[in-house]
Amino acid sequence: MGVFNFEPGMSFSRQLDAADELAPYRESFVFAEPDLIYLDGNSLGRLPCDTTARVQEVVEREWGRELIRGWNAGWFTAASRVGEKIARLVGAAPGQVLVSDSTSVNLYKLTMAALALNPDRRRIVSDELNFPSDLYILQGCVHTLGNRHQIHLVPSEDEIEIDLEKLYGAINERTALVTLSHVSFKSAFLYDAAAVTARAHEVGALVLWDLSHSVGAVPVELDRWGADLAVGCTYKYLNGGPGSPAFLYVRGDLQEQLFSPIWGWFGQRTPFAFDLGYEPVEGINHFLVSSPPVLSLLAMEAALDLPLQAGLERIRLKSVQMTAYLIYLVDTLLAPLGFSLGTPREAAVRGSHISVRHPEGYRINRALIEEMNVIPDFREPDNLRLGLAPLYTSFEEVWEAVDRIRRVMEEERYLNYPEERLIVT
Amino acid sequence: MGVFNFEPGMSFSRQLDAADELAPYRESFVFAEPDLIYLDGNSLGRLPCDTTARVQEVVEREWGRELIRGWNAGWFTAASRVGEKIARLVGAAPGQVLVSDSTSVNLYKLTMAALALNPDRRRIVSDELNFPSDLYILQGCVHTLGNRHQIHLVPSEDEIEIDLEKLYGAINERTALVTLSHVSFKSAFLYDAAAVTARAHEVGALVLWDLSHSVGAVPVELDRWGADLAVGCTYKYLNGGPGSPAFLYVRGDLQEQLFSPIWGWFGQRTPFAFDLGYEPVEGINHFLVSSPPVLSLLAMEAALDLPLQAGLERIRLKSVQMTAYLIYLVDTLLAPLGFSLGTPREAAVRGSHISVRHPEGYRINRALIEEMNVIPDFREPDNLRLGLAPLYTSFEEVWEAVDRIRRVMEEERYLNYPEERLIVT
Repeated sequence: MGVFNFEPGMSFSRQLDAADELAPYRESFVFAEPDLIYLDGNSLGRLPCDTTARVQEVVEREWGRELIRGWNAGWFTAASRVGEKIARLVGAAPGQVLVSDSTSVNLYKLTMAALALNPDRRRIVSDELNFPSDLYILQGCVHTLGNRHQIHLVPSEDEIEIDLEKLYGAINERTALVTLSHVSFKSAFLYDAAAVTARAHEVGALVLWDLSHSVGAVPVELDRWGADLAVGCTYKYLNGGPGSPAFLYVRGDLQEQLFSPIWGWFGQRTPFAFDLGYEPVEGINHFLVSSPPVLSLLAMEAALDLPLQAGLERIRLKSVQMTAYLIYLVDTLLAPLGFSLGTPREAAVRGSHISVRHPEGYRINRALIEEMNVIPDFREPDNLRLGLAPLYTSFEEVWEAVDRIRRVMEEERYLNYPEERLIVT
Repeated sequence: MGVFNFEPGMSFSRQLDAADELAPYRESFVFAEPDLIYLDGNSLGRLPCDTTARVQEVVEREWGRELIRGWNAGWFTAASRVGEKIARLVGAAPGQVLVSDSTSVNLYKLTMAALALNPDRRRIVSDELNFPSDLYILQGCVHTLGNRHQIHLVPSEDEIEIDLEKLYGAINERTALVTLSHVSFKSAFLYDAAAVTARAHEVGALVLWDLSHSVGAVPVELDRWGADLAVGCTYKYLNGGPGSPAFLYVRGDLQEQLFSPIWGWFGQRTPFAFDLGYEPVEGINHFLVSSPPVLSLLAMEAALDLPLQAGLERIRLKSVQMTAYLIYLVDTLLAPLGFSLGTPREAAVRGSHISVRHPEGYRINRALIEEMNVIPDFREPDNLRLGLAPLYTSFEEVWEAVDRIRRVMEEERYLNYPEERLIVT
């Protein structure tokens, strides 16, 4: 990935933008408030310019005019069609990726399927950096199955990385499933997914990757890794829109061995025969449940062309350069103000967001949003999370964000806010 | 419901429209093809006129401008807020209805929760008129729980109604759950839900109603019935749009006894603490899983005002009058052409669609769609299903549809089509 020579200052950031091959993609997104520095594209991606017209077409023409005929004109097959577009972003040959439900529901379906395949193996391995909701789903699966499985969470000593030797030590011949976030939601730690998958396979365990924080920003090569299962969301780096439906991957040769616990009409061999008994269709489609939320699904489909056109190699190159630049600015300008890095320094194990830690992180985050027109997000206990979306974040925005954080500190603006957390009501 | 005196002919249908209090609501829906007679609102409701602008606002302002702030500005609470609007359509006091996932996923969650409450009861009672996908979900639940439960399906001798004495005979002290469609998808048979619920409660069984084919067209009184659980879809008579998210109901005093098997982040007591262990929030919200598809959800919310304003009593009165009128026309004009009624004659046990049976039903359906600009739908083996949506179907359309069916028969237009079913690909 090379060593970068960075300098501070706005003009240098503009030089980086001038040399950025992906800079033209910024024009494909809506910037309703030009002064707003949006560093939360890892939570909800920006609106692509083409999405509004596409949604209007879906509402007015496909629903309003075609009515029920819309199902035959493209909605029925959308879960597969859009799945195949996502497949190209996650290194999957055709026939292995579907759009369906939410990430959590898909995680439930695939975890239950995986545990049913090896009922005598009672160990599930994950880590403490995993998104807590993924752990809740695992806990619900264990509860559903009568509390006969144990979930082993590999700890992280520095709250930033996972020691792979510790992970490997936790995966044994009693392990049914290893399930991890490819990029962790807080520290952005990035797993060597091929190595972990290989290690799990050595002892006969299945591996399920949550790609929510990597898809669209980090190259994913499910087929090359030999991955068994994966899920992911589409509203972060894929810009699918709030709560857009999620995807799932089941490796081709596992599809006739694994079955969802949720036996859905869309996964039935002959849905329009209306037989009273469920018979799963061949292939990955038996992981479908029922009618997808068409407006949200087709809005998301339209957004996928952008990362597909840009290409994940170029996206990754820019992401690495931007995160390195931001780390450089944190070291140079923010470390003297009490900030520390909460993200791996080595690019090879780092995703596309940066966490910076500060004891006053919560109040700093509020001051940035309410006074400085910067939107990062905050993750307990002290992480400011700065997401860099290579398709639309500029180097100048990175510079400007750091400069505004500096001003919040020097002007002590964070003291304007209470330490009590705002409760969402 | 009274006895109606109908006459054949277009002018009589126009008299009925002139006397229809709900006729002005027709102007609240998009009629992109004025000559099209759409009788499939029981499958996908028409587009309300206000929906396009609302969706555009959600996309451009809430997503495009507010970005992640949209969650605090209304998305986080939308599942409850929209749930409370639906609650008013299903006779539920506040705090008992949520919007979440799809009907099938909700049915899975509630069935699993119900079966866990009484693990020693191993009998599930449903009927053969239930929507097959509901039965598939039940079969998947039974499989998930190790095939220790039995599903007893009460048969229908005439394929139109269920003999309540047979149903009552099937519900016994070994029954954990009775789950039925309030209105059946093919014959439109409508249960006396209060009576069935009371009978199930006599032996300690829980009752789960699928309201998909009744909500918005037939009065539903979950609290008055004493119902335990319910699910339903929002894209039929509620006009929420293709695949719009579903709802679920859990009676207040059951909410601390019943838990979803899918332990979701949105159902966690403190989601933003990011604790590693799941702890369900009080009340119905622990049946939430994760981020809803916001575009589809808010499009649906906008549509709910129409049935709320019109009022379910008036909707039901018009529905009964329209279905009676259609039955009269079937008897008068279509019975001589070989059609028979596949729907109860008694209004008290009839929903808002009419099935007419004919040995050539499949080909007649195709001719109606492709040559006559009438959209019913076809359900195997021989049902033409004619859905009457009281908010926008006119009596003139009912007359015209029957007249076009007559022409298809007299001109033998159905002979233009093969008997082989079109396969959706």
